[in-house]
Amino acid sequence: MTVDFSGPVPELALDVDRSADVPLGRQVQDTLRSAIRSGRVRSGERLPSSRQLADQLGVSRGLVVSAYEQLLAEGYVVTTVGSGTRVADSVTAAVTSTPSDAVEVDSARLGPVPHIDFGYGVPDLRAFCTRDWLWALGDAIRTMRTADLGDGAVEGDPQLRAVLAGYHRRVRAGSVDAAHTIVVAGFRQGLTFVLSALAGHGIEWIGLEDPGPGDHDQIARRAGLRVSAVPVDADGIRVDRLRATGARAVLLTPAHQCPTGAVLSPARRHELVQWAHEVDGVIVEDDYDVEFRYDRQPVGSLQGLAPERVVALGSVSKTLAPALRIGWVFAPPRFRADILTEKRLSCRGVPHLDQAALARLIQTGRFDRHLRKVRVSYRQRRDTLVSAVAESIAGATITGLDAGHHALLRLPPGVDEEHAVAHARAAGVAVRGVSDYRVTPDDGAPRDPFPPALVIGFGNVTIRQIREGIGVLGRLAAARR
Amino acid sequence: MTVDFSGPVPELALDVDRSADVPLGRQVQDTLRSAIRSGRVRSGERLPSSRQLADQLGVSRGLVVSAYEQLLAEGYVVTTVGSGTRVADSVTAAVTSTPSDAVEVDSARLGPVPHIDFGYGVPDLRAFCTRDWLWALGDAIRTMRTADLGDGAVEGDPQLRAVLAGYHRRVRAGSVDAAHTIVVAGFRQGLTFVLSALAGHGIEWIGLEDPGPGDHDQIARRAGLRVSAVPVDADGIRVDRLRATGARAVLLTPAHQCPTGAVLSPARRHELVQWAHEVDGVIVEDDYDVEFRYDRQPVGSLQGLAPERVVALGSVSKTLAPALRIGWVFAPPRFRADILTEKRLSCRGVPHLDQAALARLIQTGRFDRHLRKVRVSYRQRRDTLVSAVAESIAGATITGLDAGHHALLRLPPGVDEEHAVAHARAAGVAVRGVSDYRVTPDDGAPRDPFPPALVIGFGNVTIRQIREGIGVLGRLAAARR
Repeated sequence: MTVDFSGPVPELALDVDRSADVPLGRQVQDTLRSAIRSGRVRSGERLPSSRQLADQLGVSRGLVVSAYEQLLAEGYVVTTVGSGTRVADSVTAAVTSTPSDAVEVDSARLGPVPHIDFGYGVPDLRAFCTRDWLWALGDAIRTMRTADLGDGAVEGDPQLRAVLAGYHRRVRAGSVDAAHTIVVAGFRQGLTFVLSALAGHGIEWIGLEDPGPGDHDQIARRAGLRVSAVPVDADGIRVDRLRATGARAVLLTPAHQCPTGAVLSPARRHELVQWAHEVDGVIVEDDYDVEFRYDRQPVGSLQGLAPERVVALGSVSKTLAPALRIGWVFAPPRFRADILTEKRLSCRGVPHLDQAALARLIQTGRFDRHLRKVRVSYRQRRDTLVSAVAESIAGATITGLDAGHHALLRLPPGVDEEHAVAHARAAGVAVRGVSDYRVTPDDGAPRDPFPPALVIGFGNVTIRQIREGIGVLGRLAAARR
Repeated sequence: MTVDFSGPVPELALDVDRSADVPLGRQVQDTLRSAIRSGRVRSGERLPSSRQLADQLGVSRGLVVSAYEQLLAEGYVVTTVGSGTRVADSVTAAVTSTPSDAVEVDSARLGPVPHIDFGYGVPDLRAFCTRDWLWALGDAIRTMRTADLGDGAVEGDPQLRAVLAGYHRRVRAGSVDAAHTIVVAGFRQGLTFVLSALAGHGIEWIGLEDPGPGDHDQIARRAGLRVSAVPVDADGIRVDRLRATGARAVLLTPAHQCPTGAVLSPARRHELVQWAHEVDGVIVEDDYDVEFRYDRQPVGSLQGLAPERVVALGSVSKTLAPALRIGWVFAPPRFRADILTEKRLSCRGVPHLDQAALARLIQTGRFDRHLRKVRVSYRQRRDTLVSAVAESIAGATITGLDAGHHALLRLPPGVDEEHAVAHARAAGVAVRGVSDYRVTPDDGAPRDPFPPALVIGFGNVTIRQIREGIGVLGRLAAARR
């Protein structure tokens, strides 16, 4: 990729040696030629103006002009009116060029880019509140104190922390103060910090939902924990099985289990809190997908039930956009110092302007307005999904539709999950099988079987894409049987 | 801190039970009263409108209005025209309130806030290019693809990576491609990833400059490495002493040593690269403070000298503002996969909008324009510092002034470093002693002594503050002798 620097181009670091025998003019030519030949400036990229380079090297402008004329004659550079001197297209850099970078390599390995993507966890990116976000950034930058451009408090912007805590108390029936709220760069970073803090507090084993969110087993091991797999059913995590593992910590998605979509039942919630009290345990609550509910009353955060036993984490990745990279941790006081140490030593902080913008977005009601807007379209997509499955895939069932923007499609008998995923991809439909969400435990215990199923994310697909994509899956299933 | 939600306030999660014997109206009253008493909604915070709450609970509006009237009569809420119903000031939440959060606690522990802060590493925050940054954000958000609001490539925005690599080749005489450029959330995060990758490649010991940047010994240990302390002198790190440690990796600040300000001499640069080849070693280059040079020709990046042996890291924390949290890693191909795994599992990415904005800022020349502007004021501050020290502190010397915005002030004989720091703070001048920058090694080897000195950051202080602050230090030194 040619980098087309415009305006005053960045300085080109070159050197001349006044004590050398070689004349300065020759030195300028040589150093420029070698910068081009070595690939430091590449085909199509602009060279500094003769005035700029002369100033930088402390030589006369005429001397630089002569050097450029020589390089022009040699074919290294071309000159265009109004666009200065550029490295000629024909120049082949001595260094090995790697024009196609790894992004392209990776996508090539994964086959053709699908035109319908049922990827898990992606909200409606087209609906992102661009205007409101820019407004919030502008308002933040105009009203922030100068000192807020510095390193800032490790725990995050005080105003955002107060807003997040207040919001969690109101909307999630939580019980938390700004003092115990820590801003992080998304859920995953918060999880890394929290699990490291648990390991530092003597926790050795953690139970993970199986199936559950991808990579969490790896993240737990990196934090120094060992992993047990705990099965889930239609009521969420099996607390009896958690108890049997002997683990003193658990990580779960109670509001809308990932990937099954089950909502943790009231009985299980009480059983879980009871378990935590009995084993002196810690519940790590991935409090996501709570903003989009369809068929049921709000389910409060577990954190509100047992604030001293629950660490709750949230983010804006599934409500606004993953690219924002803002999340939060509500932690009991005893874990706070360790989480902050993790944060301080591993990354220092989250961009302050983004934090200030999010505080404003929430506080002025723009965040809720956005949620109300997208909730309507998620409900439509969900209803479309239900009817499309009923019409197109005989023998399939779809569950986990009470909240959020993903659901679990159980395949008809006789249809192989891996086969369905591969053939769907070949037909331009990206979807993942539930086997991608299985946990790799450290205790060697056999995992419960889980029936073949596909995880269908419907947050970032249109009504039409849902019908078309489910149609493709239906034809594959019919052909297979 | 009261959170003053404006606009349509966020939903207040409340529940009624239609199967219970208690009348619905009473239930609404009870659940509201308990939300207030438990501190979920606090004094001064707004309650939902009666219409909003009635919709949410699926009850008649009149029923909610009656409940609000009852709470008004009981003194729980107050009503103001045009501002809705708020929780009364007199209500004391049942939960223990922690109004003064930890930020305030921490600053209280550190004593009075100084009015002159010679803190290390902070650029001129008042000079931050607010308008250009907002322009870049706006341009980015208008031109980004919708998909860029998703998770994005782990290595970072392709355009920013190309711009950073191109800039490093031009300005730092580096030798790097976009393919080997990884965007990170600031230097510290990049360092964490790089050191973990080194540990994964069988590196066990790393040499750190002593004195050197704070916390790096802790960060190295957390990444699984053991630390040797390597002394620095006026030519930078002592490569002979590095060699003696037996370490196969080194982390250093060659362009402007932190905190002494020494520039790594040409002889040492060659010796260092030689060492790396001999021991199959890795040089981790903290390539900072290169943008501000005063007395000497540009010093190229070590990365350009030995691309296969050097991992170079940079950030905008000392050129634009620490609050932006954007940095980069240029890594030899063999470390790339491990660094990306670290990034993927520990945080996923850097806010995409900020990445796209930085690419635009650099590519359009606005970044360089900013550098030219602040370079002038840093030079003035530097000159002021030199003359203020000469005038005000008899027997002191100041070194490390060839680049950057910090320098080392060696205290006159007889003046104790710790005493000077404490008394300066009491007089409103924040400054740190060089002993704060000493490394704690793991090899038990005795560290070389280092003479008493203060680290003077002059990036974020005015000319007047420099004169005044150095005057304070001079009076303290004179009184002490």
